[in-house]
Amino acid sequence: MRIARLDTPAGPRHAVALGDRWHVIASPFAAPLVYTGDSIPADEAVLLASVDPRVVVGIGHNQPGHPLPMQAWHKSVHSVAGSGDDIYAVRDVGTVNIEGELAVVIGTSATNLTLENAFEAVLGYTVANDVTNVDQCPIDQRNFQGKSGKNYTPLGPWIETELADPENVATEVVINGAVVANSGSFNLPSSVAATLVYVTKWLTLEPGDVVLTGAPGTDLPVQPGDTVDITLAGIGTLSNTIA
Amino acid sequence: MRIARLDTPAGPRHAVALGDRWHVIASPFAAPLVYTGDSIPADEAVLLASVDPRVVVGIGHNQPGHPLPMQAWHKSVHSVAGSGDDIYAVRDVGTVNIEGELAVVIGTSATNLTLENAFEAVLGYTVANDVTNVDQCPIDQRNFQGKSGKNYTPLGPWIETELADPENVATEVVINGAVVANSGSFNLPSSVAATLVYVTKWLTLEPGDVVLTGAPGTDLPVQPGDTVDITLAGIGTLSNTIA
Repeated sequence: MRIARLDTPAGPRHAVALGDRWHVIASPFAAPLVYTGDSIPADEAVLLASVDPRVVVGIGHNQPGHPLPMQAWHKSVHSVAGSGDDIYAVRDVGTVNIEGELAVVIGTSATNLTLENAFEAVLGYTVANDVTNVDQCPIDQRNFQGKSGKNYTPLGPWIETELADPENVATEVVINGAVVANSGSFNLPSSVAATLVYVTKWLTLEPGDVVLTGAPGTDLPVQPGDTVDITLAGIGTLSNTIA
Repeated sequence: MRIARLDTPAGPRHAVALGDRWHVIASPFAAPLVYTGDSIPADEAVLLASVDPRVVVGIGHNQPGHPLPMQAWHKSVHSVAGSGDDIYAVRDVGTVNIEGELAVVIGTSATNLTLENAFEAVLGYTVANDVTNVDQCPIDQRNFQGKSGKNYTPLGPWIETELADPENVATEVVINGAVVANSGSFNLPSSVAATLVYVTKWLTLEPGDVVLTGAPGTDLPVQPGDTVDITLAGIGTLSNTIA
């Protein structure tokens, strides 16, 4: 099932794709879903960021043998944007990279998840771009200077709740129409489940929170004017232009 | 003026102290303030975290001569708590420190502040405790493992909008009734204004966001059962017990 977040006259609303219309729901976290009765033709819908998280956790994987474990950090929710929004690359601070990633959208409060039950806390999956001022990294121990820019975290185009296998999601990055990276969550040094176990050991996640899963070789430099399309198999394509 | 955030039957509401009552306001960010007409006797009011931020920025000051600039990070909004709430110290991960700090509550959208206009973006000030699992720091480059525990960011007891001089706020930390630290914002390696300039160079702050200003020697280890009272002159006392 696809759940999008739409710009409507009443404000942002989540909606489910059925046929050629988006059907508005009261909340994406209710079970069962409650339909309001409103619907919007798909070709008239304006999609926002697929979720409005209170917490976005970024992930840096360390290669096997590295002295430190996986690293996590909080990325600013002010950086969240939707598919179609311009990414405002910070000027004069070095190279700006896009990073095409699988993002997990949490559905239920989750603490101390295990490898066995990690996916029970998941509502679905969306495509993320973890935009980064990479030349800041050496002087920015906490990933603040590098990752807080306007629209530096596009999330979209929607949440897919029925992904066959989160550990095997093919990821394609296209810049200005040319394929520049082909990889997938299967190339991550730690599994998606292990990432959720790690994060929830230290932080209780809540419905709507987003966990990025790291870039499996899908980080690439961009320039103003570039168009970036990140496609995750089974989910969809997140498209943004660098402003 | 003191602005608190109260637990009411209608949900959390901000309110202004006038005489011996809290007078409910529609929003702490409106100018002028709009009073709803509701009020609550001070001795019956239940105070929550003084603000419900979308972003909490933590600050680590480096001493003069350090090769790196001031470091900032996003602290989880899930860790925000109020005065009187128990802090759930994470067990078996080493020492837990409290850190008594002056916190800035942002009033208006702010980007690229200068030393001259930094305080124009400020709604007011509150007392913060930046609780930290300090033994995690060496393996936790992004301040995630160390600072994401339940109620690890008490904010309270209220917001003071008329602080005489944010750069000269005396800070006293009392543990179990004994004074264990006497310092103040005047002992911070960087001024409060310089901290706001740094943060807003990289991140646009929004109303309700909170910027911690760092601990001026007010970081101390605690044990379960300890009571912690942090008093900032001109604001008030934030009191919590370690669970």
